Amino acid sequence: LDYQHVQVPFEITLWIMLASLAKIGFHLYNKLPSVVPESCLLIFVGLIMGGIIYGLNDRSPPVMDSDIFFLYLLPPIVLDAGYFMPSRPFFENIGTILLYAVVGTIWNVFGIGFSLYGICQVKAFHLQDVSLLHNLLFGSLIAAVDPVAVLAVFEEIHVNEKLHILVFGESLLNDAVSVVLYKLFRSFCEMPTIKSMDVFAGVGKFFVVGLGGVLVGLTFGMTAAFTTRFTKDIRVIEPLFVFLYSYLSYLTAEMFHLSGIVAIIACAMGMKRYVEANISLKSHTTVKYFMKMWSSVSDTLIFIFLGVSTIGDNHEWNWPYICFTVIFCLVWRALGVLVLTFFVNRFHVNTITGKDQFIIAYGGLRGAICFSLVFLLPDFHRKKLFIAATTVVILFTVFIQGMTIRPLVDLLAVKRKRESAPTVGEQIHIRFLDHLLAGIEDISGHWGQYYWKDKLEYFNSKYLQKILLREYDQPKSSIVLLYEKLERKHAIELAEAGQLGHAPSHPSLLNNRSVMTDKKLEDTLNPDVLENIHEILARNLYRIRRTGPAYNRHTLPGDTEPVEHAKEILILRHKGL
Amino acid sequence: LDYQHVQVPFEITLWIMLASLAKIGFHLYNKLPSVVPESCLLIFVGLIMGGIIYGLNDRSPPVMDSDIFFLYLLPPIVLDAGYFMPSRPFFENIGTILLYAVVGTIWNVFGIGFSLYGICQVKAFHLQDVSLLHNLLFGSLIAAVDPVAVLAVFEEIHVNEKLHILVFGESLLNDAVSVVLYKLFRSFCEMPTIKSMDVFAGVGKFFVVGLGGVLVGLTFGMTAAFTTRFTKDIRVIEPLFVFLYSYLSYLTAEMFHLSGIVAIIACAMGMKRYVEANISLKSHTTVKYFMKMWSSVSDTLIFIFLGVSTIGDNHEWNWPYICFTVIFCLVWRALGVLVLTFFVNRFHVNTITGKDQFIIAYGGLRGAICFSLVFLLPDFHRKKLFIAATTVVILFTVFIQGMTIRPLVDLLAVKRKRESAPTVGEQIHIRFLDHLLAGIEDISGHWGQYYWKDKLEYFNSKYLQKILLREYDQPKSSIVLLYEKLERKHAIELAEAGQLGHAPSHPSLLNNRSVMTDKKLEDTLNPDVLENIHEILARNLYRIRRTGPAYNRHTLPGDTEPVEHAKEILILRHKGL
Repeated sequence: LDYQHVQVPFEITLWIMLASLAKIGFHLYNKLPSVVPESCLLIFVGLIMGGIIYGLNDRSPPVMDSDIFFLYLLPPIVLDAGYFMPSRPFFENIGTILLYAVVGTIWNVFGIGFSLYGICQVKAFHLQDVSLLHNLLFGSLIAAVDPVAVLAVFEEIHVNEKLHILVFGESLLNDAVSVVLYKLFRSFCEMPTIKSMDVFAGVGKFFVVGLGGVLVGLTFGMTAAFTTRFTKDIRVIEPLFVFLYSYLSYLTAEMFHLSGIVAIIACAMGMKRYVEANISLKSHTTVKYFMKMWSSVSDTLIFIFLGVSTIGDNHEWNWPYICFTVIFCLVWRALGVLVLTFFVNRFHVNTITGKDQFIIAYGGLRGAICFSLVFLLPDFHRKKLFIAATTVVILFTVFIQGMTIRPLVDLLAVKRKRESAPTVGEQIHIRFLDHLLAGIEDISGHWGQYYWKDKLEYFNSKYLQKILLREYDQPKSSIVLLYEKLERKHAIELAEAGQLGHAPSHPSLLNNRSVMTDKKLEDTLNPDVLENIHEILARNLYRIRRTGPAYNRHTLPGDTEPVEHAKEILILRHKGL
Repeated sequence: LDYQHVQVPFEITLWIMLASLAKIGFHLYNKLPSVVPESCLLIFVGLIMGGIIYGLNDRSPPVMDSDIFFLYLLPPIVLDAGYFMPSRPFFENIGTILLYAVVGTIWNVFGIGFSLYGICQVKAFHLQDVSLLHNLLFGSLIAAVDPVAVLAVFEEIHVNEKLHILVFGESLLNDAVSVVLYKLFRSFCEMPTIKSMDVFAGVGKFFVVGLGGVLVGLTFGMTAAFTTRFTKDIRVIEPLFVFLYSYLSYLTAEMFHLSGIVAIIACAMGMKRYVEANISLKSHTTVKYFMKMWSSVSDTLIFIFLGVSTIGDNHEWNWPYICFTVIFCLVWRALGVLVLTFFVNRFHVNTITGKDQFIIAYGGLRGAICFSLVFLLPDFHRKKLFIAATTVVILFTVFIQGMTIRPLVDLLAVKRKRESAPTVGEQIHIRFLDHLLAGIEDISGHWGQYYWKDKLEYFNSKYLQKILLREYDQPKSSIVLLYEKLERKHAIELAEAGQLGHAPSHPSLLNNRSVMTDKKLEDTLNPDVLENIHEILARNLYRIRRTGPAYNRHTLPGDTEPVEHAKEILILRHKGL
């Protein structure tokens, strides 16, 4: 037996296997995941495993290594989050998200830090040796909402898109702030005296870390898009570039002490549309599938490790400090959300309701990032107290808040996510309104969201697409792409119908198609109008492509070749029969 | 700048990136890959990089670590090879393959070892200090044909299926033999005296290592198939199990000193059909795509590393030894193939032609496995000579043989692989003949290939499928599955036709389908017969499924539900319109 030789890969594989099997196990009993969030179950599995290891070895089980967490487990989850980020709601609410992420986090850090320092002054608690700076350091690591924990819980409760993007976007973008504050206070702790100069430098760092991350991410994203222009002959390694470049963006950002999370999100969001256009359909399926798979495994491993690491004797228990930490975390977050939302609502028509505010405040889950940061603290005599307090806050938020948030959402009747995808009609409508608003903003000289979006779109189609897309001379409007996608989906469904079980209700193929793709439209439109729309769409779709999308002000007119036309007409005739 | 922190993942990512970019680079110039095999180009890139590193640092560039090679780079390639192994030609030629792999390798090892020992006796060459045992040890590592190198070259030249499987199968299965011999001679080198007992134990080890590998592989393969029964609710981690279990089989086999290569091949071949039936279509695309991607990257890295490791001053040059090594490698292989094929041809109707024999002998490329094994040798004073000889043999076979094999194949007019997939008609024919032959063997009491195949199929459908498949009560005959697959493929093609460019020549949808799926049949059958076949197929396909596949003697009759029938009839009517 030669275990030494294969130990490292063998144990890694076994851990991943355990995580995957645990996931399967939970889903075997359908009732369990609908009551308890998966994250809680996984932590529970981890606790049991940690207990077994502790019982057998009689020493603390190994703690999750911060390097492993930040270098290997976190990037896949953030990449997945960035790649599948719905960009429209994200950019529509970017101001609010940034306000929560930057001001909100600073508010929480200082709120928690100062009030805990107040608690430490009470003589009865025996905590006078914890300095203000240590309390602020602790505040900086405990204040940040954790994207992994938030994602795990919010993916299961399906709140409306805006609420989801507010909580989730905040949890992602506050990384830049919390890392800066954490590093700042940590270096202050080691300095003999603190000059006001250092404080200003710290404030300046916010922008460097955040914007630097965006810059690094976009650079790698554009390079990735450019690289996939040349993969036509070796489709098989296309998916690799998506992973390699985004991981490189994360590592590079970390190397320069910038925010890796922000970098990887910028990279993923930046490259997505170009990469998708360049790579083959199968490559794209692989990218999406593998990303989901990878993030899902990382997520599982993180929660299991979290459970395992909790067991052990590296905790110092102090009732008042720990209890007040939990209370302050809750109170300061609630206050922060209330105050910030008050200002947000004054400048927006589409306000954030009281219920939404409650869910935002209540959804502030802490997770593995806090945990890794607290173990990264330099050794000092109260480190074990901080570890204990962090563990309790994480377990409290994940278990108590995570398990009660679903019933609360039900109870408050928070607006849910619409289950259906937007119909073709709605998409046309949204695009139409976008262009209309861009025009209005242009005329009125107001540089608003739509103005910038339009300018960006112009820049994109005029320069970026030419450089980054393989076939930039055939700009297909998104409505044509959507139509193609629906056609393809329908074709696959029809072919698989024997297995998938879509029993079509009309006898003819043409009607069948209409029913499939537009059954949602039927709910809102009367049949005559619908018939009319179908007529127009079916007759004009290839004409749109021929003349170029006329409703987009800036796209270049596409000169498709006559052969293409002939084919297309033939195909349409086939479909129409 | 904090490079230390991210060094390991950063450098790994950069190496993979370099490998991928090199691959893209070669394919940008279409003429290059058609003349020079990719493996040569990659080694060349490696040589240049090694030269740069050597020039800059003035010391040898790092040598490819044997652990990295055997634990991380080799498994993906072997998994890919095993998973996509065409099982029919493999099992049809298993006897010949094993003969080449076992007897042929032993022949080469002893042939090369003894004749090199003979060379060492010539006083003029100053090699008298190399003992017989060391020569045999060297023979054992240099004799084995390398699957990575063989695959890289033979995938590009498209020889006929039988020839391909003979060379490739041999290169995979000789691992068990060469590893046993290598370890045997290595332990003999360290022993003071060798008893005849040890030699017998060594011979017995062949079977243990080979069969043990098969056993480990099959165990993990069956477990993998069983696990995928329960992934219905979390499709997203399905692909993971394919990779995890096969990797575990490799590591476990290595741990017990069995053949990891044999184990992973057995695992992949064993689980394939069950896993494919259990997992979703998208998961399967991801598995296939990722496997190809991974093996392709591994392959690239291996050749680049091979080039890099060649540069350096760990070589001892001795003209006669190195030249005679190359000559003996060629001569003994040619002799071995001739002798073994003589015996094979006496017992087979479908003989191996002289041309094929030449290509088998000439295709015996050496690669990274030899290279890793020579670096794993215990330190002794002539190790550098062995390294130099191994490097020269690898470069000679990959460059000279690899580059000339394609022109030779053209020159000799070796029978090529048929480009088209077998038609439905052919598949029916093959199945029919299989059953006929099984029946004949059964009646005549001859326990041949078909008899065992039939028994295995019976065991599979009676027991294995029930345990390993999620929906074992609906055994679909492979002809129905093929029909579904063709239908699906056709549907996707039709939908994508605008992009893919299949201009259909007939106006109606039904005719169009016939043209697509059966255009190869048309070449061999006259139109009337074809029309008739279409009629029968179209009318009877759902009836076959209803009554169970009657032509398979052992499959259980499947009781599909009436709802399914109704759906199926509806769909068929749609298609027929």
